[in-house]
Amino acid sequence: MERRWNKLGILAGGGNLPARVAEGCAAAGAPFAMIRLSGYADEATARFGGEECGLGELGRIVRVLKNEDCDAVVMAGTVRRPNFAALKPDWRGAALLPKVVAAARRGDGALLDVLVETFEAEGFLVIGAEEVSSGLAVPQGPLGRHAPAEADLRDAAKAAAIVAALGQFDVGQGAVVCNGFVLAIEAAEGTDRMLARCAELPASMRGLEPDEAEGPRGVLLKRPKPGQELRVDLPTIGPETVRRALAAGLSGIAVEAGSALLVDKDRAVELADEGGLFLYGFLPAEFDG
Amino acid sequence: MERRWNKLGILAGGGNLPARVAEGCAAAGAPFAMIRLSGYADEATARFGGEECGLGELGRIVRVLKNEDCDAVVMAGTVRRPNFAALKPDWRGAALLPKVVAAARRGDGALLDVLVETFEAEGFLVIGAEEVSSGLAVPQGPLGRHAPAEADLRDAAKAAAIVAALGQFDVGQGAVVCNGFVLAIEAAEGTDRMLARCAELPASMRGLEPDEAEGPRGVLLKRPKPGQELRVDLPTIGPETVRRALAAGLSGIAVEAGSALLVDKDRAVELADEGGLFLYGFLPAEFDG
Repeated sequence: MERRWNKLGILAGGGNLPARVAEGCAAAGAPFAMIRLSGYADEATARFGGEECGLGELGRIVRVLKNEDCDAVVMAGTVRRPNFAALKPDWRGAALLPKVVAAARRGDGALLDVLVETFEAEGFLVIGAEEVSSGLAVPQGPLGRHAPAEADLRDAAKAAAIVAALGQFDVGQGAVVCNGFVLAIEAAEGTDRMLARCAELPASMRGLEPDEAEGPRGVLLKRPKPGQELRVDLPTIGPETVRRALAAGLSGIAVEAGSALLVDKDRAVELADEGGLFLYGFLPAEFDG
Repeated sequence: MERRWNKLGILAGGGNLPARVAEGCAAAGAPFAMIRLSGYADEATARFGGEECGLGELGRIVRVLKNEDCDAVVMAGTVRRPNFAALKPDWRGAALLPKVVAAARRGDGALLDVLVETFEAEGFLVIGAEEVSSGLAVPQGPLGRHAPAEADLRDAAKAAAIVAALGQFDVGQGAVVCNGFVLAIEAAEGTDRMLARCAELPASMRGLEPDEAEGPRGVLLKRPKPGQELRVDLPTIGPETVRRALAAGLSGIAVEAGSALLVDKDRAVELADEGGLFLYGFLPAEFDG
């Protein structure tokens, strides 16, 4: 990786992305300090040491970053919708609280924007997880052995338009479309639960055509919301997404190339290849009119 | 009811709406014939007699309507996404099948439009369920004892905008918004399952503010898709919707006045009153800018 900073603070939310980012740093010999967000960060991040801070303890987070001589910050992993009543803000956090609460009313995206602003005001460089671990960003085209068919690309285009239309409401990054029929739209439940409910839909909802054999059909599409702060909360997929897409009987997963992350790539591609599922990185120009 | 027809054919899909429509006719002394759609119509409709037809047997459906001397048709109840492979179309149905399949690719709304066209081409008057049983249409304002607060109306306005934005994709008629945060958007799963998953969301996702007591919060909003054929597939709520909204911890349900149906109104209002839930009929002008 080409570094624009000396030492990176990793603010770790949920999921396995923070551990991947730390591994990316370690592999490149790039110094880092982990800050685990209480109630969000995965147990797996504990092996990288560092402090555990509450999301409301913004003053303390900034202090830890400075004590560790960090000059850059990456927010990695999911930090969904905090319970403000349980935030226990420190002085700095409390000063920001009205702004954070107002932002949260507009959705998760707005909430993260406030954190980015705060770190930048303190002189930190805020970077995206894909910059630390460039192997995480999904490239354009098919990954693995399978590629989308014409009908899959039509479904993906419809799903792409839906996520784009919802962007103004700061909701979701995903939708599932099968034969032109919208099976599911992601909101607060997240991608995994959305796929779980697709698996429960009766087969008749897939809308197979009279001359069509039963078989995998339908596309999960994930892309950033329009106007989303791309350095935080990028749409992320991994082996678990592939497993659930297979269980839902889908034919593939499409994500916006360069703006979505694939964690545990080798394992994800292996599972997709075995299951006959395509993984496809699309360019916005392919679908946006 | 003021009737513009002599005898009504009730094409019965799923749910309890068809039985309510038949009861409405019976109460008004208006003649009707029931046609139950195989695989969709509820057992409860069997007591009204009449034929059972497949959705693909359009020729037979038209024949039955003519034999029964019907001059009007109402499509009542849900007919979601048929499995075309299992349709077993008759001659008439088969002739329409390519058109139906193409329409279905665009969604349920387009599919129902084809049926409306077919009945109208045969000279039948196609009417809406609310015309038969005017007590079903939700009036403007609060129903029952509870009314929405300011914050509820803000949530309802956001949900109304989301359903409107999704209309072009022929998807969903419902969304749940809580404190400005979009908890769920309805697609193929239907309103009941959408509410069930809201009930499963962790409390922290409700986004309570620091000074706020825990309590019911969030609004289920249902309205027709823009451009939806209003005589079929109107958004419908009933006691079960109220029960599920209460279980999901919501503060109320808002539906578009005059364009949504409330079945078993007395029971629904009673349950809402007991549970502290508001039922509110909104006018589009209240929310659409």
